[in-house]
Amino acid sequence: MLEKFKELKGQSGTHSPSIEVLKKELGCEIKIDACFLSNPYATDLFMDCLFGEKGSENGLRDLFEFYPPQNQDIAKTLSKSLNVSSKNLMIGNGAIELIQAILHRFVKGNISIPIPTFSSYYEFVPDGVQTYKFQLEASQNYRLNLKDYTRFIEENNIHNAVIINPNNPDGGYNTREDLVDFFEQNSHLDNIILDESFIHFAYESDELDLPSLETKLDLYPNVILIKSMAKDFGVAGIRVGYAVMQSNYVRQLLDTGYLWNSNGLAAYFFDLYSNESFKLKYDLVRKKYIMNTIMFINELSRLSGYEIIPTKANFILVRSRFGLTSEELMIELLTRYGIYVRDCSDKIGLEPGYVRIASRRFEDNVVIVDSLKKLQNEYLSV
Amino acid sequence: MLEKFKELKGQSGTHSPSIEVLKKELGCEIKIDACFLSNPYATDLFMDCLFGEKGSENGLRDLFEFYPPQNQDIAKTLSKSLNVSSKNLMIGNGAIELIQAILHRFVKGNISIPIPTFSSYYEFVPDGVQTYKFQLEASQNYRLNLKDYTRFIEENNIHNAVIINPNNPDGGYNTREDLVDFFEQNSHLDNIILDESFIHFAYESDELDLPSLETKLDLYPNVILIKSMAKDFGVAGIRVGYAVMQSNYVRQLLDTGYLWNSNGLAAYFFDLYSNESFKLKYDLVRKKYIMNTIMFINELSRLSGYEIIPTKANFILVRSRFGLTSEELMIELLTRYGIYVRDCSDKIGLEPGYVRIASRRFEDNVVIVDSLKKLQNEYLSV
Repeated sequence: MLEKFKELKGQSGTHSPSIEVLKKELGCEIKIDACFLSNPYATDLFMDCLFGEKGSENGLRDLFEFYPPQNQDIAKTLSKSLNVSSKNLMIGNGAIELIQAILHRFVKGNISIPIPTFSSYYEFVPDGVQTYKFQLEASQNYRLNLKDYTRFIEENNIHNAVIINPNNPDGGYNTREDLVDFFEQNSHLDNIILDESFIHFAYESDELDLPSLETKLDLYPNVILIKSMAKDFGVAGIRVGYAVMQSNYVRQLLDTGYLWNSNGLAAYFFDLYSNESFKLKYDLVRKKYIMNTIMFINELSRLSGYEIIPTKANFILVRSRFGLTSEELMIELLTRYGIYVRDCSDKIGLEPGYVRIASRRFEDNVVIVDSLKKLQNEYLSV
Repeated sequence: MLEKFKELKGQSGTHSPSIEVLKKELGCEIKIDACFLSNPYATDLFMDCLFGEKGSENGLRDLFEFYPPQNQDIAKTLSKSLNVSSKNLMIGNGAIELIQAILHRFVKGNISIPIPTFSSYYEFVPDGVQTYKFQLEASQNYRLNLKDYTRFIEENNIHNAVIINPNNPDGGYNTREDLVDFFEQNSHLDNIILDESFIHFAYESDELDLPSLETKLDLYPNVILIKSMAKDFGVAGIRVGYAVMQSNYVRQLLDTGYLWNSNGLAAYFFDLYSNESFKLKYDLVRKKYIMNTIMFINELSRLSGYEIIPTKANFILVRSRFGLTSEELMIELLTRYGIYVRDCSDKIGLEPGYVRIASRRFEDNVVIVDSLKKLQNEYLSV
């Protein structure tokens, strides 16, 4: 089983095999996909809206048959809900299209990337650009120390810097205030790429207000903000993301491409997101999911058999104290309890032993905690 | 009305305003969208399959919630139905993503583009690449003469040549045999970009067999074939296209990008297309639509009030002989009969006066012919 899994993983590059592939190839029943980083309550809300409004075959047909609106038309729609000028908005076929576009078009010379992190950031760097990996410290729970990062940037004469906040796979978070300080000190850089794909799960007070910096970027023209909407809105299959950047960059991209890069459902989603009533409902499910996640992490932290890394995202790194490798822990959870977690043994810059576990629905999180507890008790009682 | 339309058109760049925008802004009822180039019978088939298999909210939810398969996984699926190795297949978020990728990554020096044609070909050419427009002759009904084109390529020391077959907006067609001759004579070019986005509507005998060259490209490594699936399969909103190219090019693109560029519905569509029973059903609706289009063009050619350009695509250029400009003809058809056609006054390289009319369902085509007849009779009887 372990060998077969390794083979499947090899075929998926630096990403985990999909649940469909696992079902087909390993024949194991997956009850909880805790590999998948999304808010399931937001998916419920999206499906309710879609089927409420476009529920018939004819309603959906329009979204599939006809050309969707062009990039700038969708940007105008999104502009209303973000309070960011459409001239600064670039719509992406998922955030990953924008990561690629920005790395290929605007990054020259060199780039610094804190590791461990989402692998596409270093995999998509084009030929001719040198990558400087900034190692996050295990002793600091992988939290990005912005002062150390600034020093690293100076010492290596870096032109372009990446920050993922909260970071994936560890969930390390920096406050808005600290980031603004970093922007001030690094205004000489060509580009600061700030990825806020997990920001909807972070918070700075018990109000759980959204701590995004997207409306503050007028003051920092070298900052490019990238935002996946797959995780927070639970719609990875419809490919939605955007970036906020200087208008000159948006124009350069649109002048020679990216004309019809959204599909019909994505266009529908952006329409929905510009609707006040949807936004209010979404904010409720966002906060509900954050509360669930906080409870989940709380329960996990009580399990003496595991180490965890503090997180402000919707996932958590977990390592056994009873001698299982990350792959063994993953296989045990999958085969005994039907829980699929992300084996992080391939994450460059991360110590061995960790799996990443996503927060799911309340009742699923209860099963995950119970299963981890059973597993630790079994191993520790031997 | 004409002024308002011009304003809307200005906002859409070199593409026509969408039917949604027209409805909202002009308040006119559009009964037949003959601007839209697709086979409606194929959309019927797709919707039947989708709702037959995934008809419930839960079935569709899976396509929207989870990450779709990666590019190369979809290529493996498509490979089976095309009989082309997946190593030579690049999946696109619509053909337009591939046009952009190829122009930006593989075209160096200069490029020749026959005009009139689909505007993205010259609009997406990156800085530093010189564009040579090859004017198609009105006196030859805009049909691309491949011998003249070869001479033009030689005379201008061209490195990259584009051929769209059948061409848009005129529907001019070159046979497989003539294209193979052209490939033989131009094997020294860096790239020959062959766009077959309308090939499913073309035919070379009464069998109506598909005259694509995609399985013949092993012999011509400098040929890149681009294929939109929006028109023939009637699914513009789900963004599906592919390119066949040397494996080295596919690798270069995938090494630094294009990882998850298909959405869940697109992945479902490619699965469907690899299914033999679907392919048989599709071939029936493809041939039915070609027959309809032949009948439609036949009827149009009998109308003495209009000039037409011979076509092998699913659309036809039409010009009034009674003094209307293309914009006036478009507005007359829209306001009197609710028929929306493409005013081609902005098409570079096309003589003035033409509108492009798409073939639709049989009964819609009857209405279009009748409306054109009424219009001509009214004008000619004055």
